Order: sequence, then C-alpha cells, then structure tokens
Amino acid sequence: MKRILLAALLLASAFEIRAAEGPQAATVRQRARAWRSAHEASIVEELAALLALPNVASDKPNIERNAAAVEAALRRRGVATELLRVPDAPPVVFGELSAPGARRTIVLYVHYDGQPVVPSQWTGDPWKPILRDKPLEEGGREVPMPAAGPIDPEWRLYGRSASDDKAPIVALLAALDALKDARIPLSANFKFFLEGEEEAGSPHLEQFLETYSARLKGDLWLLFDGPVHQSRRMQVYFGARGVTGVELTAFGPTRRLHSGHYGNWAPNPGIELARLLSTMRDDEGQILIPGFLDDVRKVTETERKALAAAPDVDAELRKELGIAKSEGSESLLESLMRPALNIRGLSSGDVGAKATNSIPTEASASIDFRLVPDQTPERVKTLFEDHVRRQGFTIIREDPNREARAKTPRLLKVAWNSGGYPSGRTSMDLPVSGAVVRTIEASTGGPIVRLPTLGGSIPMYLFLEKLKTPVVGIPIVNHDNNQHAANENLRIQNLWDGIETCAALLARLGVEWK
Amino acid sequence: MKRILLAALLLASAFEIRAAEGPQAATVRQRARAWRSAHEASIVEELAALLALPNVASDKPNIERNAAAVEAALRRRGVATELLRVPDAPPVVFGELSAPGARRTIVLYVHYDGQPVVPSQWTGDPWKPILRDKPLEEGGREVPMPAAGPIDPEWRLYGRSASDDKAPIVALLAALDALKDARIPLSANFKFFLEGEEEAGSPHLEQFLETYSARLKGDLWLLFDGPVHQSRRMQVYFGARGVTGVELTAFGPTRRLHSGHYGNWAPNPGIELARLLSTMRDDEGQILIPGFLDDVRKVTETERKALAAAPDVDAELRKELGIAKSEGSESLLESLMRPALNIRGLSSGDVGAKATNSIPTEASASIDFRLVPDQTPERVKTLFEDHVRRQGFTIIREDPNREARAKTPRLLKVAWNSGGYPSGRTSMDLPVSGAVVRTIEASTGGPIVRLPTLGGSIPMYLFLEKLKTPVVGIPIVNHDNNQHAANENLRIQNLWDGIETCAALLARLGVEWK
Repeated sequence: MKRILLAALLLASAFEIRAAEGPQAATVRQRARAWRSAHEASIVEELAALLALPNVASDKPNIERNAAAVEAALRRRGVATELLRVPDAPPVVFGELSAPGARRTIVLYVHYDGQPVVPSQWTGDPWKPILRDKPLEEGGREVPMPAAGPIDPEWRLYGRSASDDKAPIVALLAALDALKDARIPLSANFKFFLEGEEEAGSPHLEQFLETYSARLKGDLWLLFDGPVHQSRRMQVYFGARGVTGVELTAFGPTRRLHSGHYGNWAPNPGIELARLLSTMRDDEGQILIPGFLDDVRKVTETERKALAAAPDVDAELRKELGIAKSEGSESLLESLMRPALNIRGLSSGDVGAKATNSIPTEASASIDFRLVPDQTPERVKTLFEDHVRRQGFTIIREDPNREARAKTPRLLKVAWNSGGYPSGRTSMDLPVSGAVVRTIEASTGGPIVRLPTLGGSIPMYLFLEKLKTPVVGIPIVNHDNNQHAANENLRIQNLWDGIETCAALLARLGVEWK
Repeated sequence: MKRILLAALLLASAFEIRAAEGPQAATVRQRARAWRSAHEASIVEELAALLALPNVASDKPNIERNAAAVEAALRRRGVATELLRVPDAPPVVFGELSAPGARRTIVLYVHYDGQPVVPSQWTGDPWKPILRDKPLEEGGREVPMPAAGPIDPEWRLYGRSASDDKAPIVALLAALDALKDARIPLSANFKFFLEGEEEAGSPHLEQFLETYSARLKGDLWLLFDGPVHQSRRMQVYFGARGVTGVELTAFGPTRRLHSGHYGNWAPNPGIELARLLSTMRDDEGQILIPGFLDDVRKVTETERKALAAAPDVDAELRKELGIAKSEGSESLLESLMRPALNIRGLSSGDVGAKATNSIPTEASASIDFRLVPDQTPERVKTLFEDHVRRQGFTIIREDPNREARAKTPRLLKVAWNSGGYPSGRTSMDLPVSGAVVRTIEASTGGPIVRLPTLGGSIPMYLFLEKLKTPVVGIPIVNHDNNQHAANENLRIQNLWDGIETCAALLARLGVEWK
C-alpha cells in the first residue's frame, strides 16, 4: 500500500514537472512558428535589407551604416541600445532588455560584419541579395522576393553574410516580435552585443570587453555564429578552436635561372619548402612538430559521450566532397578535438602551360593552425620556429637583399598573421551547459548535437578568461552555406528553425537554469 | 755544324708553321674585328629588326615572318637558301655555301624561335628591342639605338631571343660579310640549318632530319646556342643534357572547405604533394627515386681533365646570384654531369594577402628533368611513376570528377610534357673535337673552356644517333642574359666576340681539321 502511494506520488510529481515545463516549451515553439508563418515575407525582407549593406570591417562608412541599421532594428523591438566605441574599431551595437525579477543575465553575441568578397568569383553581386529555388551547385535559379505569403523553406537567400552572421540577428528580432505578440515574458535579463569586426579577427574585442566590463556583466554569453550539424540537426557548441597563421618564404637564386645550366647547383626553393613542410605534418593530419601536442587538454568523459552520440554523417560528407578517405581514423567531430595544421596555399614559379624550365627565386607557403585548449599562439610560434631552425633554416622577418642571401644558406622568412588567439572551451558538466541543451531539446522535441568544440575559431577564450563567464555557441545556419567563400547563402528553413530556437532561449533558458 | 743546321731547320719549320697557321688566324680575327668596328650600328640594327618579329613557335603567321626574314638575310650574303617543310611545323631555313676543293662539309645550326613571354613580367615590350646602358638589375637605363658609330660593348640589347638564339644568326651573317669584304675563302663547305621550334621542344626536328637526310649530309654539326662561360671566356660544349617535364596535381575536397570546420579531416592536397616531392630529391640536388642513377654514363678521363681546367667561378656566381651555398659538394660544371630534378613551379590555394583559412581543392607541381647519357625519357617516366605508386598514389591522366575522387584516395594526375628527349655527348677524344678547340683558341689567343656537356638541353642526340655525325656546340652569348625568363638580353661585347669566333670557324676549321 505504502509502495503504491509512493509510486502514485512520484507519478504525480513527474506529471507536475511535465505540466510546468513541457507545455510551456511547446507553447513558445507554437507561438513562434505561428507568428513566423504569418510574416515569412517580411522576415526575409528584413534580412535582405541588411544584406544589401556591404559589411567588410575595413569599409568604415558602410560598416557604420550596418551598425545604425542593426541598432534601429533592436530599438524597434524596445531594446535600450547604444553604440559602444573604442578607437579605430567598428562600433559594437549594445542593447539591454530587462525581465523584472529575473535572476540571470544572459549576453547574446552576434557579428554584423562579413568576410571580404572577390566579386568575380560570385554568381551575381555579393551585396544584392537574391533568392534562389535551390543551391547554385544544384542548378538553383533566381526567384523573385515575395511581397507576402509563404516562402519555400528549401529556397536559399544568397548574399555575403546571409549565413555568417546576419541570419541570427534577424532570427533574434523575429523571436522578440513573436514573444511580444504572444505576451510571453523573457526568462532572464538579456543583453545584446553585436560586433563589427569578427571576420577581421576581432582585433578590438578584448579592448571592448575591458573598457565596458561593467556594462557587459552577465552570467552567460550565448554566441550566435557558425553552422548547424551536417545532418541539419540543431547543435550547440561549448568551445571553439583557436587560430593563428603564418606565411613562409624560402629563397632560391635572386633571378630565375635556366634549370639546365644551373639545375643541381642553384638551390631550389620549392624543394626546400616541400621538405620542410613534410617534416611538420603527415598525410593523416598528425602534426609532427616536437612538443606541439604536449599542451593539448585531455578529452573528458562527458565530451567523449557527446561526440559518440552525434549523428555519423562522415560517409555522406565524403561522398558530397569527393573524398575517398578522410585523414586519420577518427570521425570528423573527434578530429576537431585535436589541433590542425592546414596548408592554405603554395606558390613558386609557374605550373601548367605557364611553366618555364627555370629555377624559381622564391617559394611560399601559407599555413593556418587551429588550436585547442590549452595551447597558445605564443607557444605554437615558439615550437614552430624551434622546429624550423632544427631543420637547418635561419629565420628572418623581412625580405633579404642579395647580400643577405649570399651570406646565409637556407633563409626562411617567417611572418605571423596578426590577430591569432587561443582556443576556449566551457565545461559541459556545468549546470548552465545542461540547461542550454534541455531548453533547445524541449523546443525541437528531440536530441540535439552537443559539440565539445567547434572546429572553426571564435574568440570564446575571451569570455572565459577575461570575463570568467561561461559561453555557449548556438548555430542556426546551414552547413552548406559557402561560408567565407563566394556565393554564401542561407537555407530558409534554417532561419525558421533559428527563430524557434531563439524564442526558446529567450523565454525558457532562465527557467531551465536551476 | 750538323747540329746547328738541324736547329736552324727546326727553327725554320717552326716559323713556317707559325707563318702558315698563326698569322692566318690572327688575320681572320683582325679583319673580322675591323669590319665589325666599322659597322657596329648596322649589325645591332639588323639584330634589333629580327627581334621585333614575335617568334613563339606556335604563333604561325609571325614564325613565318621570322623564317622569311632570316632566309632573305642569308640570300643577301650569297647563300643558296630554301625553306624546308614538314606538315604542321615552322619551316627550317636551309642554305648552302660551297668552297671549291673543300674536303669537309659542316652544318651550322641556329634556331630562330624564342621562349614564350609573360609580358607583365617584362620591363618594356618583349618584342620591342631596347638598348640599355647596363643590366636592368643594376639600374640600366634605355639608350637610343645609334644610327652610326661605335656602341659601348657593355650595353645590353633587351628583347625576347636577343640571346637565345637570334644573336648567333647575326654573328654568322656579320662574319660572312667580313670574310667576303676581306676576300678570305671558306675553309669547308657550309650548310645552314635554322630551326623554328626549338623552344617548343623541337617536336619535328627528327622528321626534318629524316625527310631531308640527303640534303643535310655533313661531317660535323656545329650548334650555335647557349651561353658562354660565366667567366665570360669562350667555351665549346660536346654534349647537352636531355630534358623531360611533368605536371602533377593532387586533389583535396571538391570545393574549398573552411579549415576550422574540416581541418584535420578533409585531405590537404598541399601536404600530400609536398611529402611526395620530398621523397624525390634532397636539398643537395640528389635524386632519391630508386634506380634513377643506374643508367648514368661514367665520366671519362678527358672529360674530368677538361672540367678541372675550367675557370672556377662558383664563388663569384654565388655572390652574383645571392646563393650562400650551392647544392652538393661539386662545382657547377661537375654537377652538370649528373641528371637534375627541378621544381619549376608550385601552386595551391592562395598565399600572402589573398590567403583564406580554407583547405584547397588541388595542389600542383611542375617538374623538369635534365637527363645525361644514357638515360631516356621513357625510362625516367617509368622509374618516376613506379616511385609515385610506391608512395601510395594512384596515377590518373585526366581531371577526376567527384565520383572518381570519392572512390580512390590519393589520386595524382600525372601529365608528361610532349617533346622530351635524351642527352647526347660527342667524344672529346675525336680529331674533330680537338680541331674545333684549336680553331677557336687560335682566334681568341688563349685557352677556352671545354665543356663535356652543356647543362641545358639541345637535341644533340639526334645528330649523333640519327645522322651518326659528331656535333659540337658553340655558344657566344652572355650567361647573365635572363634566357627563358623576362627581360632577356644580350651583352654587346658577346656579339662582337661571336662574330670573330664565327669568322674563325668559317675560315679556319677546315684547315685545322686534319
């Protein structure tokens, strides 16, 4: 009898929990969806209007126009906004929305600048957003921007920053509209932090965080950036790899020499560089630079389980990308827990029809590193340069003149890119980490992908290290968006899903976060 | 008394020999020099007019204009000329000059086509010859083409083929003019063979030699091509390295991928290629492809002595070319007795300011090989491809589509250049080899450099193997002529010296050749 009572009580309390939380999440989703369904054309129109503003960080007048447009859009939603400034940087669009009685303050990060464009590589103008009925790669054709009514969710919106990173701005705006319309209250105080130079490497972000530290105080940062999982399932990420890059130049004779008359005698810079590169990385992505892996933080049990639970799309991806065998024996997601050394470019002499039988004067390689906790760009630089010197090279920082070249063999010009930064990773075992996952899973109604780290780089370390605040990434855009390349695009369904995710986070995260 | 008589006789005969040969060589030189001194402007003008005719072998209308101009110039000197033709090839300008009673027939080879140009790399138009007061690298400035009077011998004439290989044409023409003016007879029958597609790899030379074998019969071929020694001393060469070339392409993903999201997983074609290249050659020019050196002919004692007698300009050259250490431990000349593998180009993704953090779709390398006796391009191809396969690559001949890329890992597209050919080397121990050296040494009045082989490639094997005729190379142009590159030029003094050498060979070789 006692047992039965206990069981009944447990059952009741289980129902209570469901009644208190389940329906609420469903309500939020339902209202967000209904509002979106009724406003599809105007939501896409708002994004298209933003995309029509060229947004390369170095383009000062246009980047200010972007900031002004984003600020105005937030104000229209009742957000108290302000442009935060430090010298020589695009402004940060800052905003606040208070929820009376809320215990937590959550800062929402998006960036409104985009990657530079090479217009000749685009089909159409990067700054004239175009709707297409499917991806260009599949023969997508332009369709007119609808003035009203529904929009096919498989259509794509093309334009620089369609995905990276203006889509989340409009998703947040639409979510605010939907909640307001449904009179659903916010579950926490929210702050908005919209950066204008992320694609330039966020050179002033640290300064912004320091200068405005009081204003930016919060219990959590949510970063709206990056793509969802390749299976199109929603995902969250708790870290990002760091990044640094370097340009290498080896030197041959001061002028191109006939390869017959001097071949075997004048040093060939291409082979010097090829042999150096071959000592740095094997064909399976393993970095061979001594000590390089010493600083790598061990993968935790929770992270391991999250990786194992993620959908396996590797075979599909290999097929899509024409890859017979991916590097290493790990899955794509597992491989992102390691640092990477990518040869992003090689150049020496000429190849193909332009090739001449001559010994080139120089050979260059461009490398980017992706770092993981607890590596730092400074330590990577030291290890890399120590390795280069052990291979017999003398490192120089400027182009050598003839005298310098004649004096020292095997010169290697090493020029590090500015703007590198370390990795950052929030523990998946924190209460807030679980709360973010539960909030979104309750909204989507199924499991989401939990990534211990994103492969790409976002300066998450700054929030973790400077502000001592956990940070979680919320991507909403499609993975096949040509991010950072020509013909960047957004799949419309991803915008729709993003609106529901944003609504859930605004209305539910403060509740889930016990 | 007897002794005194004998001594007197010996002395007399020694004088006789000097009187019969020494003065003659001196006379030829003196008359050639006097004639040149009186005609410097018109000689340079004749060369400049030839250089104004674009002469890339594939440029059919222009290459015909070159042939016509060269033929007309020979006719003006009384040479019986004819254009030899085989299908789809620039014509060979053929000519004959008979010397009544001569025992030997000597065929003079020059080529009137030039290397392709990349106009953007040139200072000025490659086809508008310009005189400069010193090399461009040393700040040379344009000087007007003089209408008459002497020309500074250190001036340079800039233009494609100024050195390679139109200068010898004009040197021969001027030598003919000088001998005629001085009424000095030819020492042998001479034939002229001016090729129009040497820089395209002489694809029809063999066919020309076969088709016109009767007309081309001779006892010796003299090849006027290549540069003099770096010490600016005259030299002759008894061989040339063979040549073949190959284009390699390794493949990454079918589209550029974000190096963060896919770095460590999507294969990087740059590192695959770098690692492959590093297995082929070391930093000292030693070829590591197994079996590659098995076919290399041993250096003879005469060749070894000739190499040892050559002036040592290596230290000077290193200084001039900004080379702290040349490859290997041998001298430049010694190193040319070995085959060479030159990486003439590398290309993948982008470097420097254009670099993006992405994984390139392809990486390409362009290689040229210099071969020595008794290697053949066919055997080199087999050894090279066997080696590539042993490194785990699958060789393909066409660009693979996505399906092919997804099916087989480590594809390598291997495309061999057409027109490769083996090395050829005339024995330095033949009587004719000594005669050529003596003739030129008697003209210059001092030792010349005897090269067992030229480092560059000229199809000497064809004359040796097809016509069974010895062949010797007579270079006249400066070594620092930017041959095969932008800003090709000719040092005027080399043209003057070349005229005297040509005059000596025309007037004296048949006498020296006992």
